Amino acid sequence: MLSDIVIIAQYFWISEASARMKSVSSSFRSSIQLTMKLFFSIALVVTIAGFIQAQTPSPSPLPYSAQTLTDLVRLQEAALQSDYALRQTRYLTNNIGPRLSGSAQAARAVEYVAEEMRREGFEVRLQKLMVPVWVRGAESGEVVEFPGMAPGTTQKIVLTALGGSISTPASGLVGEVVVVEDYEELSRLGREKVAGKIVLFNKRFDRQLASSGFGLAAYGQAVQYRFGGAMAAAPLGAIGVLVRSAGGSQNRLAHTGSMGYADGVPKIPAAAVSSEDADLLEHLVSEGKTRVKIVLTSRTLPDAPSHNVIADLIGSERPDEVVVVGGHLDSWDLGTGALDDAAGIAVSMQVLELVKRLGLRPKRTIRFVAFMNEENGGAGGRAYFDEVKGKLETQFAAIESDLGASRPLGVLFAGKSEALRFIEPLSRILSRQGASMLQLQAGGVGADIGPLTQAGVPSLAPYFNQQTYFNYHHTAADTFDKVDRKELAELGSLVAVLAYGLANVEGPLPR
Amino acid sequence: MLSDIVIIAQYFWISEASARMKSVSSSFRSSIQLTMKLFFSIALVVTIAGFIQAQTPSPSPLPYSAQTLTDLVRLQEAALQSDYALRQTRYLTNNIGPRLSGSAQAARAVEYVAEEMRREGFEVRLQKLMVPVWVRGAESGEVVEFPGMAPGTTQKIVLTALGGSISTPASGLVGEVVVVEDYEELSRLGREKVAGKIVLFNKRFDRQLASSGFGLAAYGQAVQYRFGGAMAAAPLGAIGVLVRSAGGSQNRLAHTGSMGYADGVPKIPAAAVSSEDADLLEHLVSEGKTRVKIVLTSRTLPDAPSHNVIADLIGSERPDEVVVVGGHLDSWDLGTGALDDAAGIAVSMQVLELVKRLGLRPKRTIRFVAFMNEENGGAGGRAYFDEVKGKLETQFAAIESDLGASRPLGVLFAGKSEALRFIEPLSRILSRQGASMLQLQAGGVGADIGPLTQAGVPSLAPYFNQQTYFNYHHTAADTFDKVDRKELAELGSLVAVLAYGLANVEGPLPR
Repeated sequence: MLSDIVIIAQYFWISEASARMKSVSSSFRSSIQLTMKLFFSIALVVTIAGFIQAQTPSPSPLPYSAQTLTDLVRLQEAALQSDYALRQTRYLTNNIGPRLSGSAQAARAVEYVAEEMRREGFEVRLQKLMVPVWVRGAESGEVVEFPGMAPGTTQKIVLTALGGSISTPASGLVGEVVVVEDYEELSRLGREKVAGKIVLFNKRFDRQLASSGFGLAAYGQAVQYRFGGAMAAAPLGAIGVLVRSAGGSQNRLAHTGSMGYADGVPKIPAAAVSSEDADLLEHLVSEGKTRVKIVLTSRTLPDAPSHNVIADLIGSERPDEVVVVGGHLDSWDLGTGALDDAAGIAVSMQVLELVKRLGLRPKRTIRFVAFMNEENGGAGGRAYFDEVKGKLETQFAAIESDLGASRPLGVLFAGKSEALRFIEPLSRILSRQGASMLQLQAGGVGADIGPLTQAGVPSLAPYFNQQTYFNYHHTAADTFDKVDRKELAELGSLVAVLAYGLANVEGPLPR
Repeated sequence: MLSDIVIIAQYFWISEASARMKSVSSSFRSSIQLTMKLFFSIALVVTIAGFIQAQTPSPSPLPYSAQTLTDLVRLQEAALQSDYALRQTRYLTNNIGPRLSGSAQAARAVEYVAEEMRREGFEVRLQKLMVPVWVRGAESGEVVEFPGMAPGTTQKIVLTALGGSISTPASGLVGEVVVVEDYEELSRLGREKVAGKIVLFNKRFDRQLASSGFGLAAYGQAVQYRFGGAMAAAPLGAIGVLVRSAGGSQNRLAHTGSMGYADGVPKIPAAAVSSEDADLLEHLVSEGKTRVKIVLTSRTLPDAPSHNVIADLIGSERPDEVVVVGGHLDSWDLGTGALDDAAGIAVSMQVLELVKRLGLRPKRTIRFVAFMNEENGGAGGRAYFDEVKGKLETQFAAIESDLGASRPLGVLFAGKSEALRFIEPLSRILSRQGASMLQLQAGGVGADIGPLTQAGVPSLAPYFNQQTYFNYHHTAADTFDKVDRKELAELGSLVAVLAYGLANVEGPLPR
C-alpha cells in the first residue's frame, strides 16, 4: 500500500522536478516569482504529506512531519540558490591550495575552517590526531635506451611519485622495463624475468566503463596495482615500480595516490606514469630493450600532529544524537583538491550555515566533521571513530561527500534495507532536482565514515555522475575551475536535505 | 549545364559514400568482397565519367580522364585500408620523439625519413638550411605572495617557456602580477601600473567556438598575445610576461609556441600558463597583491644546419611540373608532435608509397617535402621557396597537412576561384569518405607552403574537424595515442587523392 502511494507521489514529484529545475537554474528570476514558487512548493509538500499520512496504515507511520517536509523544501530551495559552498571551495583551493596531511597548507585549512564555523556561531573543536608526513620533492623520468634511439637523446616520461614511496638514489634509478598487465602475468614471469628490473603495471583504466557512468568501478579495477604493485614486485627482485595511472586522463597527466609497503618485503620506489607514457613504454618494450631513469626525492618525515575540525549545530530535542556530515580536508598535492575534496567540505559546512540562516532547529545535532588525512592514512576517520566507539548509539547517521562535485543523481545508502523507507521521502524531495536515485550499497559509502558504517551506523553519500571525476582525480588538474556552480549547488542541496531530514526523522533508524 | 551535372553526380556519390564507408571501416571483410567492391567502384567511376564527358559542352572539358578517375578510386580504397601512415607516425613520435629544430631528434628524423623514402625507391635529397636552436631547459613557477597565504607556503603554477624566450635570472624572476585581457587594457593601464611588474595576458581561448567546429578561429583570437605579448609589455616597463595558454586544454597543460622580440625593445622572459593557473592568478590578483616567481633556464644557441627532406616520384609526361605534398618534420618539444605534425609527414610519405605500390604513374612529378622548422622560424618553407622562386611555373600545386589528424571534412583551397572546377571532381571522390567540403580560402592554407601560395601557386590543405585539435596543440599531450587509426586513414586518402589528382589533371590550373 505504502509503496503504491510512494510510486504515485514519486511520479508527481519527478514531473514537477523537471519543470522546476529550469526555474532554479535561471539566475534572473524576480523575488516575487521566488516567493510564489516557494509558496507553491510548501503547499505541495503539505498536501502530499497529508495524503500519504492519511493513507498509510499504522504499522508504518510517515517518518517525517509535515513541518519537516516543508522545512526540507525551503532548505532545498535555499541551497540551490546559495553560493556559500562555491565560495568556500574557492577559498580552500585558490587561497590555501593543496592540503596534504602534515603540510603548512593543511594546518592553515584546519585553522580557516574552524574560524569560519566559529564565525557562524557554531560550537567548534579541533580533534587532535597524528598524521603521516610525506613530502613529494622533485621527480622526473626519461627513457634512456630504446629501439631507434638517436645517439645523445632520451625521451621524457611524465610520472609522479605515489604517496608514501621512498626516494630513488639521488642520481636516479636506472633499469630495464618489464611490462605486465596484472599480478598473474607478474607471477608467470617470475623472479628470472623480473629481478633487477623496473616493473610497469599496465592495467588500463576502463574509460568506456567510466563514461558509461561507472567511474568508481573502473577505478576499482585499476587502483589495486597502485596500492599493491610495489609489494608484489619487490619479492621477485624488482628494483622499482611504475604503475599506469588509475584514472581516465588523456592529457599526459599522472594520477598519484597512496601505495603500500609490507613488513619483511623490500621497499622499492613507486611512481604513476601517464597513460600516454605507459603506452609509449609498452610499445618500446615490445620492440626491444628499453631502460628508464627515474628520479624521486620524496621523503617521509616523522608523524606530526594535525586535527579534525568538528562543529555542532545542537539539536533541540535530542542533542546527544548526532548526524555527521562531512568530507575530508586534506588533499593530494598535485592539484588543489577541488573535487577531492574541498567541494565535500564546502557543502558540509554549508549545511550548518544554511540551517542556521533559515532559522531552522533540527531535533538532533547536526555535526560537521572535516576529516584529516583521508588520502594517505585515514587517521581522521579512525580518530573520530575511536572517540565515539564507546557510545555508538549517539551516532544516529553519517553522511560523507567524497566523490567530487559533478551532478548528484541521488543517494547511496549503506545499512539495513529496512531503513530505506526512512530515506525514501527524502529521495522524493531530491527528485525535484533530478536526484531521485536511491541505492542500497553493500560495504561502505565513504572512507572517513567507513569505521562508523562497519560498526552499524546508517551511512549515506551522494550518488554522483561518475563520468568525468576520474579524469581529474589525484592529478594536477583537480582545480577550482572543475567545480560547476550549478552542480555544486545541487550537491549542497542534496547533502542538506539528507542531513536535516535525518536530524528530524521520527523514530530510530533500523541498524 | 556542367554545374547541374556536377550536382547530380555529387548526390549520387554522396549517397553511395555512406553505404561504402561502412564496408571500408570493417576490418574483417573477405578478399572476395574486396575485389567485388573494387570492381563495382571502377565500373561506377567509368560510367559517371563517361556520362559527364558526354554531357559536358566543349568549353569546359572534364579535367580528369576516365583512367585517372578510376585510379583515384583505387588509390582512395587502398589508402583507407593502409596502416603505413600510422606506422610512420608511431615511429616518428615513439621511437624518435620530440623534434625541435636543431635537436638531435630532429636530425634523426631527417635521416630516418630520407632512409625510408630511399628504401621505397624514390629520388631523395636533403635541402640544407640553417635553423634557430632554442633549448627549453628547466622551468617552474609559483605564487609567492597572495591573499590568504599561509606562512611558509606557496602555490605552484604550471607554466612553460614560450619558444624563443630568454631565461630568467638563475634565482628566478619575482614580480607582482598585473592581469590584462588584451592590448587595449594594457594601454589603458600604462607604464604607471605596468612598470616593474609581470603582465598576465588573460585572453580566453573560446572553447565554445572551437567545439562548434572553428578551433582555428578560436586559436587566431588567442594566439596574438602569445606572439606579441612581450613586445607590447616591455616598452611599458614590464619585467616578464605570462600568457594564458592559446588552446583549449582543461587539464592543467600549458600550451607553448613561438613568441617574438622586436629590435629596440627590451627582451623580457615569456611563458604560457595553463588556463587553470591563469584563472588562479586572476582570482588572487582581484583580491590583493599577488607576486609570482618564475624560473626559466631556456637558451638560444647559434643557428645550426638542418634539412628539408625532398623525395620525388617522377612524372611520366611532365616530370618538370611538380605537385608538392608535405607537412613539417620538426615539432615542439613538450609532447612528441604526433598531431603537429608527424601525422602530416606520415600521410605525405604515404602518397608516394601508395602510388608506387599500386603501380600508378602520375603525369606530373609528385614531390614529398618534409619541411624543417615550421614551429619556430619557418626556415624550411622559405628555403624551399628560395630554391624554386626563379622557376615558379614548375610548381604546379602545393598541398600541406598541418592541422592534426582528426577527421578530414574536405578541402581548403587557396587560389583563383576559376581553379575550383578542377578540384570539384576530386571533392566528389572524397565525398565517398564523407569529406565533401570544398572551401575557397583567402590567404594561405599552410605555413610552409605559404610563400608558394603568396606567389600564386594553387595551394590545398585538408579541411579538418577542429573540435579537439587545440586541446592538445603545443602541449605535452600531443602524443601518438591522439591519432585515431581510422581518421588518419581518411586523411591519408584525402591527401593522396588531391596529390595524384592534381598530378594528372588536364591543362594548367588558373593562377
